[in-house]
Amino acid sequence: MDLVFSVFGLGRAGLPIAAYIASKGFKVFGIDVNKSIVDKVNSGVNPFPDEPGLSELVSRYGGDRLVASTSYKDASEANVYIIIVPLGLDEDNNPDFRFLEAATRDVGKVLKKGDLVVVETTVPPLTTENLVRSWLEEESGLVLGDFYLAHSPERIITGRVFEVLETYPKVVGGVDEASGEYAYRVYKMFIGDVHLVSSARVAEFTKLMEGIYRDVNIALANLFYMMTRELGIDFYEARTHANHHKHTHILLPSTGVGGHCIPVYPWFVIKEFMSRGREDLVRLLLESREINDGMVDYWARRILEVVGNGDDNDVKVCVKGLAFKPGVAILSGSRNVELVKRLLEMGLDVYVYDENLVPSDVEGLGFKWLDPSEADVVFDAFSLKIIDNRVRGSLGS
Amino acid sequence: MDLVFSVFGLGRAGLPIAAYIASKGFKVFGIDVNKSIVDKVNSGVNPFPDEPGLSELVSRYGGDRLVASTSYKDASEANVYIIIVPLGLDEDNNPDFRFLEAATRDVGKVLKKGDLVVVETTVPPLTTENLVRSWLEEESGLVLGDFYLAHSPERIITGRVFEVLETYPKVVGGVDEASGEYAYRVYKMFIGDVHLVSSARVAEFTKLMEGIYRDVNIALANLFYMMTRELGIDFYEARTHANHHKHTHILLPSTGVGGHCIPVYPWFVIKEFMSRGREDLVRLLLESREINDGMVDYWARRILEVVGNGDDNDVKVCVKGLAFKPGVAILSGSRNVELVKRLLEMGLDVYVYDENLVPSDVEGLGFKWLDPSEADVVFDAFSLKIIDNRVRGSLGS
Repeated sequence: MDLVFSVFGLGRAGLPIAAYIASKGFKVFGIDVNKSIVDKVNSGVNPFPDEPGLSELVSRYGGDRLVASTSYKDASEANVYIIIVPLGLDEDNNPDFRFLEAATRDVGKVLKKGDLVVVETTVPPLTTENLVRSWLEEESGLVLGDFYLAHSPERIITGRVFEVLETYPKVVGGVDEASGEYAYRVYKMFIGDVHLVSSARVAEFTKLMEGIYRDVNIALANLFYMMTRELGIDFYEARTHANHHKHTHILLPSTGVGGHCIPVYPWFVIKEFMSRGREDLVRLLLESREINDGMVDYWARRILEVVGNGDDNDVKVCVKGLAFKPGVAILSGSRNVELVKRLLEMGLDVYVYDENLVPSDVEGLGFKWLDPSEADVVFDAFSLKIIDNRVRGSLGS
Repeated sequence: MDLVFSVFGLGRAGLPIAAYIASKGFKVFGIDVNKSIVDKVNSGVNPFPDEPGLSELVSRYGGDRLVASTSYKDASEANVYIIIVPLGLDEDNNPDFRFLEAATRDVGKVLKKGDLVVVETTVPPLTTENLVRSWLEEESGLVLGDFYLAHSPERIITGRVFEVLETYPKVVGGVDEASGEYAYRVYKMFIGDVHLVSSARVAEFTKLMEGIYRDVNIALANLFYMMTRELGIDFYEARTHANHHKHTHILLPSTGVGGHCIPVYPWFVIKEFMSRGREDLVRLLLESREINDGMVDYWARRILEVVGNGDDNDVKVCVKGLAFKPGVAILSGSRNVELVKRLLEMGLDVYVYDENLVPSDVEGLGFKWLDPSEADVVFDAFSLKIIDNRVRGSLGS
């Protein structure tokens, strides 16, 4: 049987995967609620032009081998359904399943005997075998066994998506043995390095562990950074030599952890174990979240100290580097945006600059744009340097 | 001027370094309060026969190029003083400076103009430039500048000491510039890969960061282990695939963190920042200590569950693996010893076994020895397997 794919969710993770599968010779139906993205893809126009390599694939396959639509009905020819929609947090840091449920129920409506559904969205533990399975069964009238269901976590790094797809191991686990084996065979057809694990829940947790490892270790790096400053030690010097030790991997400090992945996944696990009455298992994760989220306040205080050092009462402060990480143009989930808001709340005269953005990108946030050379105090949010242009040289490090 | 070394502290870290320096052609005076060690060294007998490579060096140089003594006065010919004595914790987890102070004051009594003192003992932040400097100045009547003072953290791994000395970078930092530069030149004469850092405090903190990194990451591994068990996931399978990601380094779970290094160093930093009113900077470290120390209770509960599963009222439980880590014969600081004590407190009929020990090694602890094959329930403290010999196969993982 020929494989026909559909990808539900044409965001920054889903569209590259859809285009990548198309580039391997398969027909792919891409489904998204966003009509602008769908229209662009069908016209061969890349909606995420800052993702290297994506424009080429969308222009070659968009509207041809890769057909986008806002309606799940247009995916009914597919026999492999990949779900890769956002799963974020609500205001109480509980997982917000709305997009995943809607997309999964849509898949259920066109699901046929023998079809494979793979969840690539990073999800709370056991979501694939519990919620996703029940949504699919409810909508399709089928039962597991009629269809196959697996989890395969996307490990995408925005800005390096195709490098990851080409080189990173891809983990696949089924909610039953047949699902795992079938999903493994399907993924082998377009991904080089596929690893079958014993269950969907192992595949899910593998990804959650990666995210939590990073959040905890970034928190530790932020603590080390603040400690070394208290002790009059250069953090970067100490880190370089500590990391000589081949078993030591101290990460870099920051303004916190941004984006929609690392700061979100710990909460999936925290909430799961809180609901089981096991807060003892997640206190370290909660503390790490608190440290990382608290870095915005730390840097606001540091900047205020430098501003107060001068004798000018009207100090122009510029935050240079606004995206959630260097090299991308993504503002949502950025802790640097939060920092600017904090500085504005403190009554400072704050401006922003980011070499990957243009002034109109920040208008919606109500931020003012300024070239750093025209500011009195510049905070480089990526190098963590505070530069006081009113005096020679750089303060802080 | 010819260099003549002295090493204060001929323990598991100091004696290998003393022997190593002797093997590079230098005269070394080794000073220790333990007369048995001193006598053995002078007779060419290795007091730590489980340390690979050490017997050969002690037998070749002991009593000859390496002369041991219980009196600091016998080190007065030296012009380089290396201090490498234990620095542990008191009952309130405060650093216990008694040995370091005694050794340093002894060095001070024979210190001469132009001599170099290097602290290799891992110490709380700023100890070298504050306490050690003042003890030396008080006893010698000299002031810094008359003598040189530096810190160079030992990075020894028991059981692999000479591998570390040969291959690991050695960090050296002075309390002033001249001290750093002189210590660097001296260490270059017997260590291949020496790195000069800008200060003694950087050298000190480098080592503390390594230990804290490991303690926090072992705590995280222990949490992941307990979480995966709750979720019905094989920890080792999930870890293998999470660690595929080149930026993920999830460590292994355990019965806690033993020995005299990793569980101790976090307290040096915790107490330092508590005394500065900065508990906010060390909560993650405290939580990690609590998790790792709590693993003894976790495993005691797990073992009790298995014991209670059988219908035998008189169950022989054997803890296999008693040393603080696999492959060594060191019981002090072992969490496995604590585990046995906990099981005894719970009223179980507990025995012990360790392939690197003999029954008489555990008599002082009041433990009973038993071959695991004769026990009903065996807990392998290194592989974390609980084997119920009353039924076929192994429970737990």
